[in-house]
Amino acid sequence: MHTVSLHSMVHEVALPDGRRYPIVVGGLQALPEWLDRIGLQRGRCLIVTDENVAALHLDLLRTTLEAFGWLPHALILPAGEETKSLTHLSQIYDAALAWGIDRRTPLLAFGGGVIGDLAGFAAATLLRGLPLVQVPTTLIAQVDSAIGGKTGINHARGKNLIGAFYQPELVYADPTLLLTLPEREWTSGLAEVIKHALIGDADLFAFLEAHWEVIRHRAAELLPQLIAQAMAVKVRVVVQDERESGLRAILNFGHTFGHAIERVAGYGRFTHGEAVALGMLAALWLSHQRHPELPFDRLCSLILKLPIAQPLDGLTFSLLLDAMQVDKKTLASRLRFVLLQALGKAYVTDKVSVGELQAAWQFVLEMRRLAVGT
Amino acid sequence: MHTVSLHSMVHEVALPDGRRYPIVVGGLQALPEWLDRIGLQRGRCLIVTDENVAALHLDLLRTTLEAFGWLPHALILPAGEETKSLTHLSQIYDAALAWGIDRRTPLLAFGGGVIGDLAGFAAATLLRGLPLVQVPTTLIAQVDSAIGGKTGINHARGKNLIGAFYQPELVYADPTLLLTLPEREWTSGLAEVIKHALIGDADLFAFLEAHWEVIRHRAAELLPQLIAQAMAVKVRVVVQDERESGLRAILNFGHTFGHAIERVAGYGRFTHGEAVALGMLAALWLSHQRHPELPFDRLCSLILKLPIAQPLDGLTFSLLLDAMQVDKKTLASRLRFVLLQALGKAYVTDKVSVGELQAAWQFVLEMRRLAVGT
Ligand SMILES: NC(=O)c1ccc[n+]([C@@H]2O[C@H](COP(=O)([O-])OP(=O)(O)OC[C@H]3O[C@@H](n4cnc5c(N)ncnc54)[C@H](O)[C@@H]3O)[C@@H](O)[C@H]2O)c1
Ligand SMILES: NC(=O)c1ccc[n+]([C@@H]2O[C@H](COP(=O)([O-])OP(=O)(O)OC[C@H]3O[C@@H](n4cnc5c(N)ncnc54)[C@H](O)[C@@H]3O)[C@@H](O)[C@H]2O)c1
Repeated sequence: MHTVSLHSMVHEVALPDGRRYPIVVGGLQALPEWLDRIGLQRGRCLIVTDENVAALHLDLLRTTLEAFGWLPHALILPAGEETKSLTHLSQIYDAALAWGIDRRTPLLAFGGGVIGDLAGFAAATLLRGLPLVQVPTTLIAQVDSAIGGKTGINHARGKNLIGAFYQPELVYADPTLLLTLPEREWTSGLAEVIKHALIGDADLFAFLEAHWEVIRHRAAELLPQLIAQAMAVKVRVVVQDERESGLRAILNFGHTFGHAIERVAGYGRFTHGEAVALGMLAALWLSHQRHPELPFDRLCSLILKLPIAQPLDGLTFSLLLDAMQVDKKTLASRLRFVLLQALGKAYVTDKVSVGELQAAWQFVLEMRRLAVGT
Repeated sequence: MHTVSLHSMVHEVALPDGRRYPIVVGGLQALPEWLDRIGLQRGRCLIVTDENVAALHLDLLRTTLEAFGWLPHALILPAGEETKSLTHLSQIYDAALAWGIDRRTPLLAFGGGVIGDLAGFAAATLLRGLPLVQVPTTLIAQVDSAIGGKTGINHARGKNLIGAFYQPELVYADPTLLLTLPEREWTSGLAEVIKHALIGDADLFAFLEAHWEVIRHRAAELLPQLIAQAMAVKVRVVVQDERESGLRAILNFGHTFGHAIERVAGYGRFTHGEAVALGMLAALWLSHQRHPELPFDRLCSLILKLPIAQPLDGLTFSLLLDAMQVDKKTLASRLRFVLLQALGKAYVTDKVSVGELQAAWQFVLEMRRLAVGT
């Protein structure tokens, strides 16, 4: 990471085959300079966004682009996970082709992970590939989903079952956009930041601990560093494993339980980050069994500072176990867990017994009972 | 090209970034050995095919696979260009996910270019990429569309507007499958073979001239060589330009007029190959203007041997010119032509005047008048 003249923080994703693209943390007003810098030709560009983001930030993006000679055309989709569908993908195809694009027309994905995944997939497949610029507007999208080239949509049979690996030409994250995020979305993002710290960056973990109250309240002066450092973990993983054949799986820390919690509770009751936070507690418990030297209390207590209000009613272990097995069937043959051997060091294992899983979940329930004081 | 122990002819596509895959001309019964050879694990596999191919050849493919321990599941779609649609893509998604696949489940595209493009795109996007095996069953698919990784579907606004570059793990072409092709499909394929000879292989051109009557009647003993040699031209071009940034455009020899002819005549009146054959005559005329040493009569006379019965009624120059300009708008900024400087040597130019285009079309109309004797 280094600071450049545009007063932004920059990473670079450099893939083994030579492809590379910058990841910038900076103000939206400098985006057009970056579009020039990566070699896009000013002219038409397509913005895909959702209603919430459009209401709050589209005018700024549009005028910023127009001031530099771009001709943006915005497509505004409904907000929410249901938008990651074939129906809305088809809507992007229709709008883009009706408006008129050629292979050099950039597509800007301006929104959270939903828009990033959906519009990224549209960019991957329109005219067999348009230049994609990710302009993430949620904390999850800025530190995680906009980076790494996983794009796609959901299918009735499961999440993210259709998609492509397609790298953007640029990821551009403006931290000030996050100030309008609803509280729960912010919390959900912080859970992912903690995850990145746990699996890959002990310093980031210490930074979070040291400044927790300030970060929790989104003090603007700490956001760029927070975001840039959390991004760096994702960048490192992606560079080593673009296609998720191995290492990339560590990004799923907390996700085996997390997905099961989302599924059993019914999508929407917990945010993704909330479910992952609970899942991380379980994964930490399992890790601690194997690695007693892990600073277990310290790690758990940061997670427990996340304000997660939803009760865990109905999340029985047997329902969760069923849900994990369903999850498993669609993707691989064995149930795999990401565990920590130390703060900042994760690995994948399939050697976890049902008994241990049950004990881990018991631990989560107890922690919660203590935390909410019931 | 070299002969291997399986008594088949083999090319290899070796892309600059290290990816490589074999292209085999051989009997279907040896396909399972090749699936082993490229490292696929026997188990479930998904076959996507169309009604015509299924009626004629699916039993053979299925029993061949089952004999080697595969568990094939076939999805049979309607035949025809309309099948290259989002609707049928979605049908493949539903069937594959309902049946149960994981990231290692191979998808076999068993059909002509329509199935190859559609099923290839499905393979590119299911679980972000399944192993794809192209088993082409038309001459066009064997020498052209199954090779090179262009996959996709049509959109109401134009052909092939949605898709992905996605390379197969194996292309496996059985020449005997071609014996059941309808006559016009065979002719259409021969037009593409002539195209490959013109743009890239003077020896193949001489081979076609020397054995035309036998080839035209599909004598089984010449087919493997014909196919392997025509494939080689495509392989060479693709290896040098996977993403169609330059050289790959020479595969569009005859296509600027060809597409316009298809569009003006209404899709279906001419097969793609028939339209390209007429377009090649125009392109040869333009080439000859610039390169008088080109053996113009010789080159035209092979094309004129293709039995193309459709009259050219209604194909006025002004309608064709309009159609060329429509085609242009969707993809690039200037109307480009592929011309020959010598037999086997093609290049791209945008320096062709309207007057020349008109004269070229006049030449085609005259040739046709002579050929059909009116
Ligand atoms: N591609 C990947 O590698 C990857 C990684 C993690 C998650 N994801 C995907 O990301 C999605 C979740 O992402 P998300 O949490 O960003 O969801 P999201 O896109 O639905 O955004 C959450 C909510 O915040 C709103 N919003 C976005 N930006 C805002 C802003 N600046 N101010 C106010 N409101 C704003 C949105 O309209 C939405 O209502 C899931 O679909 C998940 O599968 C993908
Ligand atoms: N991806 C590429 O690089 C590329 C290149 C050229 C063409 N294409 C695409 O290929 C398509 C045209 O391919 P095509 O000409 O093979 O069309 P096709 O797939 O429609 O096949 C033509 C007809 O032959 C039938 N058929 C196929 N195999 C048969 C067999 N062995 N016996 C009897 N009948 C058989 C089919 O059912 C169909 O009716 C177009 O959609 C075109 O865009 C793609």
